Amino acid sequence: MKKISICLCLLLAAVSLSAQVKEDFKPATSNQPNHRYPMVNSERVVRAQVTAPDAHSVKLDIGGVKYDLVKDANGVWTGDSAPQDEGFHYYQIEIDGASVPDPGSLYFNGSSRWGSGIEVPAADEDFYALKNVPQGQVHEVYYFSSVTGSMHHCYVYTPAEYNKNPNKKYPVLYLYHGGGEDEHGWAQQGRTGMIMDNLIAAGKAVPFLVVMDNSSDTYGPNRPRPQMPAFGGPMPQGGQRPQGAPGQGAPQGGQRPQGGPGAMMGGFDFASAYQEILEKDLIPMVEANFRVVGDAQHRAMAGLSMGGMLTHSIALANPTLFGWLGIMSGGVFSVDEVAQAKGFRETNKLIFISFGSRELENRVMGYSDPKPINEELGKTGMNTVFYVSPNTAHEWQSWRRALYQFAQRLFK
Amino acid sequence: MKKISICLCLLLAAVSLSAQVKEDFKPATSNQPNHRYPMVNSERVVRAQVTAPDAHSVKLDIGGVKYDLVKDANGVWTGDSAPQDEGFHYYQIEIDGASVPDPGSLYFNGSSRWGSGIEVPAADEDFYALKNVPQGQVHEVYYFSSVTGSMHHCYVYTPAEYNKNPNKKYPVLYLYHGGGEDEHGWAQQGRTGMIMDNLIAAGKAVPFLVVMDNSSDTYGPNRPRPQMPAFGGPMPQGGQRPQGAPGQGAPQGGQRPQGGPGAMMGGFDFASAYQEILEKDLIPMVEANFRVVGDAQHRAMAGLSMGGMLTHSIALANPTLFGWLGIMSGGVFSVDEVAQAKGFRETNKLIFISFGSRELENRVMGYSDPKPINEELGKTGMNTVFYVSPNTAHEWQSWRRALYQFAQRLFK
Repeated sequence: MKKISICLCLLLAAVSLSAQVKEDFKPATSNQPNHRYPMVNSERVVRAQVTAPDAHSVKLDIGGVKYDLVKDANGVWTGDSAPQDEGFHYYQIEIDGASVPDPGSLYFNGSSRWGSGIEVPAADEDFYALKNVPQGQVHEVYYFSSVTGSMHHCYVYTPAEYNKNPNKKYPVLYLYHGGGEDEHGWAQQGRTGMIMDNLIAAGKAVPFLVVMDNSSDTYGPNRPRPQMPAFGGPMPQGGQRPQGAPGQGAPQGGQRPQGGPGAMMGGFDFASAYQEILEKDLIPMVEANFRVVGDAQHRAMAGLSMGGMLTHSIALANPTLFGWLGIMSGGVFSVDEVAQAKGFRETNKLIFISFGSRELENRVMGYSDPKPINEELGKTGMNTVFYVSPNTAHEWQSWRRALYQFAQRLFK
Repeated sequence: MKKISICLCLLLAAVSLSAQVKEDFKPATSNQPNHRYPMVNSERVVRAQVTAPDAHSVKLDIGGVKYDLVKDANGVWTGDSAPQDEGFHYYQIEIDGASVPDPGSLYFNGSSRWGSGIEVPAADEDFYALKNVPQGQVHEVYYFSSVTGSMHHCYVYTPAEYNKNPNKKYPVLYLYHGGGEDEHGWAQQGRTGMIMDNLIAAGKAVPFLVVMDNSSDTYGPNRPRPQMPAFGGPMPQGGQRPQGAPGQGAPQGGQRPQGGPGAMMGGFDFASAYQEILEKDLIPMVEANFRVVGDAQHRAMAGLSMGGMLTHSIALANPTLFGWLGIMSGGVFSVDEVAQAKGFRETNKLIFISFGSRELENRVMGYSDPKPINEELGKTGMNTVFYVSPNTAHEWQSWRRALYQFAQRLFK
């Protein structure tokens, strides 16, 4: 009993260092099974805890800020972050200068690495919760790319009714991750399966398939990797992220990338590198192995950040390939762009543009305000939607909400 | 140039501390994309490297042994392990007393945690390599368990031809992980998809489905978790592994678990806890959502270590449920057991028993030699196979090879 009291005192002492926080912490739902830490409280403060008896400095690194943890007599370090936005965040632990995953969390791909992630509860989290509704499936699929000469990896969501209707063909959405992320993003932290299952069960979305591919996997034996630009190029998987690049920084907004169709980042045309794979390998593989309707009216493309730039670029270069388009935190289509892309206007059924509210508040890259640009396009007779995720930034909660909004409007 | 020379000298100095190793190290195939470390050489030595400028002790913890890493002038720690067995190994990094995942590796579930794993090249690795052969799919499936009152998670492998033959029904194997592991084991480090695709493409196995469920997920709102035994009980996910329990230690071999059907670990009947879920929830879900033949002649069960004990126990309690049985590093069936289980002999088409050779050499738990026990059963007219994986222990390479051998004999 005495021992417990001492431990409690030490814990309280440690906690008191990090301001007055509400002591209603609960284990994060993104923790490894049976792990208590990290925790989150009702004020969206993250509390990390790591056992490191011989360390002299342990920090929680989340949201671009490092928070000191405090050591107790047992060598257990504990500390709190500032309040975070609702939703999912990448983070890491720094132990004596080493940046490592937290052994308490599950691991996610993003920020150009596999590492820790944490779910901060959200008022609207019900829409992406795992519930006992008819369950679709997420298929893990490897396919051979003739363009690169190597095996590629993607996920394909099929709705619950897919196995019950062996003769029915479905529409399909091609959905893309951001820079420093890959195909795992939408399948895991994006919670695409749960969002779709819940929408379909509620009658809010028509059943369709979702293909989640890795748009950064563009080189192989048949197409050697070119000299990369020193700064601002596409995010190589696992590499260092250049400052200001999509993924954490402000999005490229209304301004059309210089040089016309073909999304440019630091002068490197990453969209053209992927486009050929999409057309020659991925779409044919999907249409050969899944029951989908193979025309533009039943084919959508969308993406977040770099994936939105990809969508923008490929749609302008191939105006009759996709009938439904979504750009999440990654730009807009202008009246001029649509006018110059032959067949775009006639093919397109929906242009969905979304941002996190904090992205619009904190525009730092000098791009144009995307909302009026989208509204101008709407005035020309195009079906446009502009959605703003409340109180979120360039982060997954913005994109989960965007998918929830976009999916309800697709193929109707 | 001078700087490079200094760096090289420091590196060589560090390396020379760890005996004479062959300098033909290559990045492990299990690394995060674009990460050079950890590496493995042709002698199966693992070289780890971690940047930890302010640490005073960094170790590589692999195969139950900790190896000191040596710091260079840039705060980069490097060091080598002893030679490892061919195949896959769990490991971690220890930084000033904190046991954490290596930021260079991909992460795997096992040893009662998500953490680092490394692939050590094997002479026979071609059978589980990702190759450009017709690709099956691994489906991620959530299902509601009426027994526990909660959502469960499993994987289902379907062969490449599954989507091409919409009216054909297939046999199905229910395949189980070991203690401290879960459904991810066979789907990831077990390389079930690659092993099956390669076997089917070579005409060595008939096409069948493989269901990979989590047999440790046995409690929920409808069935509260009982008081756990203090030691030797089933491995709770994420908990501490008791010494000597399945997963790393010696397997329970020929000796029948005390107390009859119902595999016992430390007096806790984990098999009965799972059996009801298998019968009431999993098999009906699979048969409702996938095109499988729903009889014993087209239904197999197998598992490794604790999963082998599960197979043993469920097969004896339900002698007419599965026609084909495999136990990998997890025991045998005796003549008496089969004789006492009504309908077992008439239903069974194959009993496949396997071990890693080092498990048989290093039997430390005093169990009976499994080979003669299996041979006795064979003499009574049962179709028995005994496979020994060369130069491997209680580890994934033994079980990959066992699946490769077992799958070729199934449903023929």
